[in-house]
Amino acid sequence: MTEFKSKIKTIEWTGNSSRMVNQTILPEHFEYVEIKTGDEMFEAIKTMIVRGAPAIGVAGAHGVALYAQELEKENLSRDEFVGKLLEKADYMATSRPTAVNLMWAVKKQKDVIINSKSDIKGIVYELKENGIRLENEDIEINKKIGDYGAEVVPKGGTILTHCNAGALATVGYGTALGVVRSAFANDPTVKVFADETRPRQQGARITTLELTMDGIPTTLITDGMCSYFMKKGMIDLVVVGADRIAANGDTANKIGTYTVAIAAKYHNIPFYIAAPLSTIDTSIKTGDEIVIEERSREEVTHINGKIICAPQVNIINPGFDVTPHELIAGIITEKGILRPDYKKSIKQAFN
Amino acid sequence: MTEFKSKIKTIEWTGNSSRMVNQTILPEHFEYVEIKTGDEMFEAIKTMIVRGAPAIGVAGAHGVALYAQELEKENLSRDEFVGKLLEKADYMATSRPTAVNLMWAVKKQKDVIINSKSDIKGIVYELKENGIRLENEDIEINKKIGDYGAEVVPKGGTILTHCNAGALATVGYGTALGVVRSAFANDPTVKVFADETRPRQQGARITTLELTMDGIPTTLITDGMCSYFMKKGMIDLVVVGADRIAANGDTANKIGTYTVAIAAKYHNIPFYIAAPLSTIDTSIKTGDEIVIEERSREEVTHINGKIICAPQVNIINPGFDVTPHELIAGIITEKGILRPDYKKSIKQAFN
Repeated sequence: MTEFKSKIKTIEWTGNSSRMVNQTILPEHFEYVEIKTGDEMFEAIKTMIVRGAPAIGVAGAHGVALYAQELEKENLSRDEFVGKLLEKADYMATSRPTAVNLMWAVKKQKDVIINSKSDIKGIVYELKENGIRLENEDIEINKKIGDYGAEVVPKGGTILTHCNAGALATVGYGTALGVVRSAFANDPTVKVFADETRPRQQGARITTLELTMDGIPTTLITDGMCSYFMKKGMIDLVVVGADRIAANGDTANKIGTYTVAIAAKYHNIPFYIAAPLSTIDTSIKTGDEIVIEERSREEVTHINGKIICAPQVNIINPGFDVTPHELIAGIITEKGILRPDYKKSIKQAFN
Repeated sequence: MTEFKSKIKTIEWTGNSSRMVNQTILPEHFEYVEIKTGDEMFEAIKTMIVRGAPAIGVAGAHGVALYAQELEKENLSRDEFVGKLLEKADYMATSRPTAVNLMWAVKKQKDVIINSKSDIKGIVYELKENGIRLENEDIEINKKIGDYGAEVVPKGGTILTHCNAGALATVGYGTALGVVRSAFANDPTVKVFADETRPRQQGARITTLELTMDGIPTTLITDGMCSYFMKKGMIDLVVVGADRIAANGDTANKIGTYTVAIAAKYHNIPFYIAAPLSTIDTSIKTGDEIVIEERSREEVTHINGKIICAPQVNIINPGFDVTPHELIAGIITEKGILRPDYKKSIKQAFN
């Protein structure tokens, strides 16, 4: 496998601070911000300068390291330092209360603090190193997913994707777009079609941005167009991310994914999910148990702050849909591509 | 059948002038403009104050009547009057060069001028009357389509539609939305789901406007959501318009229609086309012969003048797609609902 070097590192520890892409101003401006204190990191997570579960987790870990750096300067005893830092870590975990990855990453840093045998300087060093390790782990998992996925992309193939399961939702490589990057590294004639992904347009706003930045040929289409291009033979496979996968393979992902999966089936085009094993929730038997979040009416009625419809129209805005396992050709994970029967292959992957 | 009274008359002769909905300022403003001269009508057609093939045709006929009113005041001989008016009629036909309905309607007015036995005053009167007759004919055809279509809408049913085949594309009732209006007149528990219809958003901008104005319960959804609601059992049938129908029933309509048809098939939901017989082009054997217009990249990359994606992304923007006849449950026309085998039923309808 050729190693693909992405231009995008969504979040990265740079010595004494954390550098991240400011996602609140995409796609018009691509700018990095330097986060130098724990409080700045708290605000960055809260205001969604950083988004995407894996990226938020790493941001939280960096935030704890930043607090440690600040406390190091206060001439505290080791016990005082540890006590105050554990408080700050708990506070950091509240910056996005529902983000599971954030709790998990802060917990990893708390374990470092509690178990360390070092002096204050040593603890600070260990927290920075652990933050970097979490960064690298996320990228390593994404690259494994990418490499396994690249094997199913035909020579010169065109991959359709929906929403953004890319570098900008992770530390820097992506899951569905990790497959794209690995395939493109082996074969520069690989191309991408990106669904706009209304209502929030992550396909247009984020996917086209990160792929064109990496020099990967990308065509933006509106969500209704997928079947037109499938019928013309211009799409070879579909690869999307996942928000949650049930034990039978049913997969919740951004609204509109299910429609693409049906269109792919009608045209006999393979439809793949790319996601780390941590996305699979084996406590859930089927997709029927997944509760779909309903989001605000303004996401549908307004674009760039301007209304696009009759103001009194009714809106139902489900954020996600569930693609049933029978439409899924494979689930691309860091342990290989799981194939039907998913009940069996998922169970095996966890053993 | 209960007669449905729509609040919308897209274009109407009002004594000595033509009144039309100004479609350039929808959905934010719903205003009528009064067109008092032939030159004003020429501009109204050219600048798309009036749009939709049937509506443009009637506008052209009204325009010829307006020119006749003006020439009547010039104390011309009958021969001079007829000569000058025929010139003006030909000029009117050039306001939208590719609009077939416009040529057809102007030709109808020229036939009146050439064949009239009346004096100047009489010719002016006959042209006004003929313009009104063309208005009424369009509405009558739409109402017949509506009434036939209403028979397939179940009690309390929900109709999904795509784009705008409504009052605002015709004189005042609509084809697909004519079916909605007739069904709602019989059963006020009937509801509509309207696809946004990216890129130009006619579903959001026009369909939600005209249906809510008429008090018909309407839910706006993004194009990718249709399958989600179909799976939940919230859609009973799909009804859309048509731009061109081949002799075998293959139907060209706004881009995204084909995706909806595939989703409907997957969920065993009937998918109907509603269109006048004039939309069927029996010289075309199958949909493969229909050339699909490619439209501008800005329709996809910009919304309300603001860019929504990476500026260097590739765009392919087909304006229409073709739904193959095997996905179509019936074609609702003014002569009844045509059913498969369409080759046979279309041939019969023209006999």
